[in-house]
Amino acid sequence: MASKTKAEPIILITNDDDITSPGIRSLVEAVKGLGKVVVVAPDKPQSGMGHAITIGSPLRLNRVQLFGDIESWQTSGTPVDCVKIAVDKILHRKPDICISGINHGANHSINVIYSGTMSAAMEASIEGIPSIGFSLLDYRYEADMEPAKHFARKIVSSILSQKKVDKHLLLNVNIPSVPLKEIKGIKICKQAYAKYDEDFDERIDPHGKKYYWLTGEFKNFDKSKDTDVWALQNNYVSVVPVQFDLTNYTLKKQLEKSNLFK
Amino acid sequence: MASKTKAEPIILITNDDDITSPGIRSLVEAVKGLGKVVVVAPDKPQSGMGHAITIGSPLRLNRVQLFGDIESWQTSGTPVDCVKIAVDKILHRKPDICISGINHGANHSINVIYSGTMSAAMEASIEGIPSIGFSLLDYRYEADMEPAKHFARKIVSSILSQKKVDKHLLLNVNIPSVPLKEIKGIKICKQAYAKYDEDFDERIDPHGKKYYWLTGEFKNFDKSKDTDVWALQNNYVSVVPVQFDLTNYTLKKQLEKSNLFK
Repeated sequence: MASKTKAEPIILITNDDDITSPGIRSLVEAVKGLGKVVVVAPDKPQSGMGHAITIGSPLRLNRVQLFGDIESWQTSGTPVDCVKIAVDKILHRKPDICISGINHGANHSINVIYSGTMSAAMEASIEGIPSIGFSLLDYRYEADMEPAKHFARKIVSSILSQKKVDKHLLLNVNIPSVPLKEIKGIKICKQAYAKYDEDFDERIDPHGKKYYWLTGEFKNFDKSKDTDVWALQNNYVSVVPVQFDLTNYTLKKQLEKSNLFK
Repeated sequence: MASKTKAEPIILITNDDDITSPGIRSLVEAVKGLGKVVVVAPDKPQSGMGHAITIGSPLRLNRVQLFGDIESWQTSGTPVDCVKIAVDKILHRKPDICISGINHGANHSINVIYSGTMSAAMEASIEGIPSIGFSLLDYRYEADMEPAKHFARKIVSSILSQKKVDKHLLLNVNIPSVPLKEIKGIKICKQAYAKYDEDFDERIDPHGKKYYWLTGEFKNFDKSKDTDVWALQNNYVSVVPVQFDLTNYTLKKQLEKSNLFK
């Protein structure tokens, strides 16, 4: 293999909105020229799928031509499935970085847990692939992706320019929905304790039976200034470093000291 | 309301295997007499659903009579949906504890992220409800649930007996698949870095097209003795305290010090 090819990083791109969404096209455009790009994404929307994997049914994998000469595949699975099958059946190796998005809608604070966009990035991180999820605070199809593209390119090229990247590096990046010139910069943040106050909208179907739509109002319970919610409200791009070790070490110590389960 | 009724804790039970599974019946039996039990669980299997929520389609909620005089409901949603709708439409308040399981199969180490059983418990914890997920290391329908029932009762009654319970308390409990007398006790653990080495089984359908089944071999990369995998291999019940703040504070500090994104 020529040394030029050898040095070119492989960039795996996926998302949860589906392979035809403007967000993933924007991400492909954003990282153009930074490496060899391969797209593996769901063939239908997967929002709110959390860290779901497909185990009860088989997966389909089909080559598509949606991004010019960039190798692209759609799967019948979830974002997590996309990462798994990309490594095992398409790339036959780990990519140098996995990027997910650009999601149409926010994935800050507690949404990191529900987010299909972040689940793909987290799966890659578990596999030892540095990874980043990108989300724009505008869920509309016609959202202006240009500021998000600008910061996605900046962040991905910064990571790829490092001599040695932590193989479990995992970032949750959210971009405010304002014009580029109004964005003040990038802020490293913690995940805010903010959540939805859930409600269900009860309706009656044409056959007289009840059904429920999940709704909810977003509430921020975390007033500190180093959270992603604060950063976004103040027109910063928020970058939350994320981990997949969910152990609560403080509670672990407390329980070890106590005689609760003796 | 009489003081007796007032003092009785409300125990919400859910799972991801579905409301008819032996595991959830065992959990109902395990906590009998410890409080007022209400069951809200999926009407079909939801394993591997991670922290999925149903947003693209409406939910159904139907009263069922499966556990004698215990109030029971089945939903068309995920385990996370079950917790949300139980609080909003059935209990009209937060239960005192939410327990999920008993799952037919292990949810130790990295599986906490994929697990529907743990996603329900995590949702409750986010909502400010102390919660515990229980999983047995035996996925068979006819698995011996008695040891798991014994420890589920012990752990739930210990938590309920505390004067003040941390409202975000979240425990991932796994029970080894051995007779009760061989279990050495309960061990407080951290989540092991163990994962599946994924592989896809490629097959050809009757129409000549490829499809893929997800398979994988479990590998433990974490050799320390305070992990859940170690505890289970040594016939302990593993209890991992879990958190929903996924911020990687070590990486946050590093990134703040660096000029990477300036």
